Amino acid sequence: METMLYQSLIDVVGAEFVIADKETMRPYECDGLSVYTALPDYVVLPANTNEVMAVISLCFQMNISVVARGPGTGLSAGALPLKGGILLSLARFNRILSIDTDNGVAHVQPGVRNLAISEAASPHGLYYAPDPSSQIACSIGGNVAENAGGVHCLKYGLTVHNIVSLVIVTAEGKRINIGAASADIAGFDLIALLTGSEGMLGIVTEMKVKLLPTPNIAKVVLVGFDCIEKAANAVNDVISQGIIPAGLEMMDGYAIKAAEDFANAGYPTDAEALLLCELDGDEEEVKQQIEAVTQIFQQGGATYLRVSTNEAERALIWKGRKSAFPAVGRISPDYYCMDGTIPRRELANVLTKIHQLSRYYGLRVANVFHAGDGNLHPLILFDANVPGELEKTETFGADILKACVEAGGCITGEHSVGIEKINEMHHQFSDAELEQFHRIKRAMDPKEILNPGKGIPQPKHCQEHRTLMMSKGSHHE
Amino acid sequence: METMLYQSLIDVVGAEFVIADKETMRPYECDGLSVYTALPDYVVLPANTNEVMAVISLCFQMNISVVARGPGTGLSAGALPLKGGILLSLARFNRILSIDTDNGVAHVQPGVRNLAISEAASPHGLYYAPDPSSQIACSIGGNVAENAGGVHCLKYGLTVHNIVSLVIVTAEGKRINIGAASADIAGFDLIALLTGSEGMLGIVTEMKVKLLPTPNIAKVVLVGFDCIEKAANAVNDVISQGIIPAGLEMMDGYAIKAAEDFANAGYPTDAEALLLCELDGDEEEVKQQIEAVTQIFQQGGATYLRVSTNEAERALIWKGRKSAFPAVGRISPDYYCMDGTIPRRELANVLTKIHQLSRYYGLRVANVFHAGDGNLHPLILFDANVPGELEKTETFGADILKACVEAGGCITGEHSVGIEKINEMHHQFSDAELEQFHRIKRAMDPKEILNPGKGIPQPKHCQEHRTLMMSKGSHHE
Repeated sequence: METMLYQSLIDVVGAEFVIADKETMRPYECDGLSVYTALPDYVVLPANTNEVMAVISLCFQMNISVVARGPGTGLSAGALPLKGGILLSLARFNRILSIDTDNGVAHVQPGVRNLAISEAASPHGLYYAPDPSSQIACSIGGNVAENAGGVHCLKYGLTVHNIVSLVIVTAEGKRINIGAASADIAGFDLIALLTGSEGMLGIVTEMKVKLLPTPNIAKVVLVGFDCIEKAANAVNDVISQGIIPAGLEMMDGYAIKAAEDFANAGYPTDAEALLLCELDGDEEEVKQQIEAVTQIFQQGGATYLRVSTNEAERALIWKGRKSAFPAVGRISPDYYCMDGTIPRRELANVLTKIHQLSRYYGLRVANVFHAGDGNLHPLILFDANVPGELEKTETFGADILKACVEAGGCITGEHSVGIEKINEMHHQFSDAELEQFHRIKRAMDPKEILNPGKGIPQPKHCQEHRTLMMSKGSHHE
Repeated sequence: METMLYQSLIDVVGAEFVIADKETMRPYECDGLSVYTALPDYVVLPANTNEVMAVISLCFQMNISVVARGPGTGLSAGALPLKGGILLSLARFNRILSIDTDNGVAHVQPGVRNLAISEAASPHGLYYAPDPSSQIACSIGGNVAENAGGVHCLKYGLTVHNIVSLVIVTAEGKRINIGAASADIAGFDLIALLTGSEGMLGIVTEMKVKLLPTPNIAKVVLVGFDCIEKAANAVNDVISQGIIPAGLEMMDGYAIKAAEDFANAGYPTDAEALLLCELDGDEEEVKQQIEAVTQIFQQGGATYLRVSTNEAERALIWKGRKSAFPAVGRISPDYYCMDGTIPRRELANVLTKIHQLSRYYGLRVANVFHAGDGNLHPLILFDANVPGELEKTETFGADILKACVEAGGCITGEHSVGIEKINEMHHQFSDAELEQFHRIKRAMDPKEILNPGKGIPQPKHCQEHRTLMMSKGSHHE
């Protein structure tokens, strides 16, 4: 059986594009959440849609799991080949097929890096807006699988809002087109269904994405506050006044100090909270928006305020934010990056709750996040060499996600569920809701061969989990 | 069996809320596309989610069709009880449950009128953005079912972009919550799947929608051109420069004259094409955008240009546009309003094609539409009393939708498929794609009791259609 599969794979993609040797496939054993590792039976690197169709048809016939992956920058172990089978690398789908400047659309293959699209569009005065912090490395196909966000998603939307159409290969190996080059689409909205579905409903082999005109000018306002609450309120005040900044980011105590030590961005290290508020557009528009937000920040009790005066200064201010994760890595042996979303108005409450949990668990926490979107990224600082500290960190993380759900939010912002948060899905969804997800899954993937074990907890597991919680006397419903 | 159902319905909602008498149920026999009529077995008016759950459970057990409807302003016969069964009126779901000014969210029942939400939010300086032209009468639940658009959707998105969360009753009578008060959601994106699904996947009984801060100022630029092509190019030039007007509407010859005769809006009746370009925001921002678009229009060969100087003038200019449909009704015994979407860049090509078809069929056509979105609304003028003219009109309409698909667009913009366009679905989707839609349908509605016969053509019908086309020697694939 194995030999037959191996030979069939070689027949489809050629011997040099099937990896069967354990050592050679080692780089594919995990994604960015490297605490989880697993090896597939084979790594396959198809060249085109027809080859993907042939590989998936084989897997469908033989009941073999398929996990698609790009460069593996994901943070929820979504690309982990949990149940062996085929790991389908889309690394060879790396071409930008066309840039349609008239309609503002890029036609690309899924293995193209996020930033490469903007680089190719740049000579035409266009760019692709969603900018996850991994944008130098992450692929646009992975962005679709995770519905990736980024700093600029506050103004320009998540990945789902920037996709025009997709070509997918279904779990049975058929090619279907979804979406259209028009504002609305007929039939059910499969683009939104596929985007963020973590490779569980189909494999994208081609896509069209929106390109936007590059703004004439962008400036960032750097604002310090002496407490988290004032910064959180200022975020709400900006958006309540109808101003949608291109980005509105927040950092707290540990993160500010760590980032400043690392990047020398000129951050006020005595501040307890820092906002980075970027405005973009035409010169006059940006000037006015800066006046408006400055007034809001000053009325909100800002203790420090500086507006970037040139591109170098703006880049340096962002460098601090972008290097905050590795910077925090220097002040702690290990850190665990969480990802939850809450209604903006709950920012102060949930951040206070996180600090209470931090004291309870005796673990420091640094917050660096997309405040405008209410998308939190608490970094829990711990030392994996201290026995029990990883487990304590995971429990702390789960408590943070529970607090997000209790505040009316969600257990994920842009990292998706993967394996990492699969148990937390029970906090957010009832059995009836999970069952509905499973039905959708089976409608697209009747044998459940695509990325099995991810995203949506299995009803059986669900049952066990429930029994366990009930035996603990919890009132989970 | 019938008596049992009738008694069970009365047990659930009370005798006064079950209509069994044919004459009393006459108002429910059609929606806004009144050429199609059908009577249900019973009209049922439940009071709350629990009653909807009980009614749907009954229908599920007894295999009875259920069509949900609001005020019936739809234009694709989506609310037609095609196969009898239960017509479920949501007229009693007419309460605004809360306005959350902090988070900019209105919690409403589905029977609330679209405009009533903005009216309730207005004292707080907020409004609900999507504004279908039926917004005085249409319900927000119907807007979700059809993914309604409107003039302001160019800048603020379709209904799907303005929904926070939904409570739905499934085809089995279960209540599930979908969405969350946060930017991203875990699990599959069921909000987008439900929005625009024409009541085929579940029945919305409660929802939260986004409220936006009311812009400080809005002005409209009225621009005339001596040919359609120049107006179409000007639309593209505005958007290519990164300006997203709040609305960007276009009217052509017949429509301009009919609207002017009707509304005395001061339209230049010698123009062959008219653009209404609305800009909103802060005073200075609007001033600059008006300067920018004025320059674009003048360079693009505008023969007439006027900017509204006060609210009364702005309202009058819009009155002409909003009354264009009834105005066209005065110059022709009947008219048929089509709805297709194309990539913006194809506007001039497709409008030319429509005028060619107009000559070929010997039927006049007036175009009044959302140019910025590429969402066409050709009004075909005909006389139903002339034998064969209705049939000719329907063929002409189908040809227009085909031209939209050929231009890379879609057979619907905001009116959905319903019964009207169900055959045209074959122009847009392959069998594999239609089959995928049916699987999603069965995943949510295993007995296919929710609004059967709408939206997605049946595979059997699909087969017949295909055979017919092949026997005609067409190369449809």
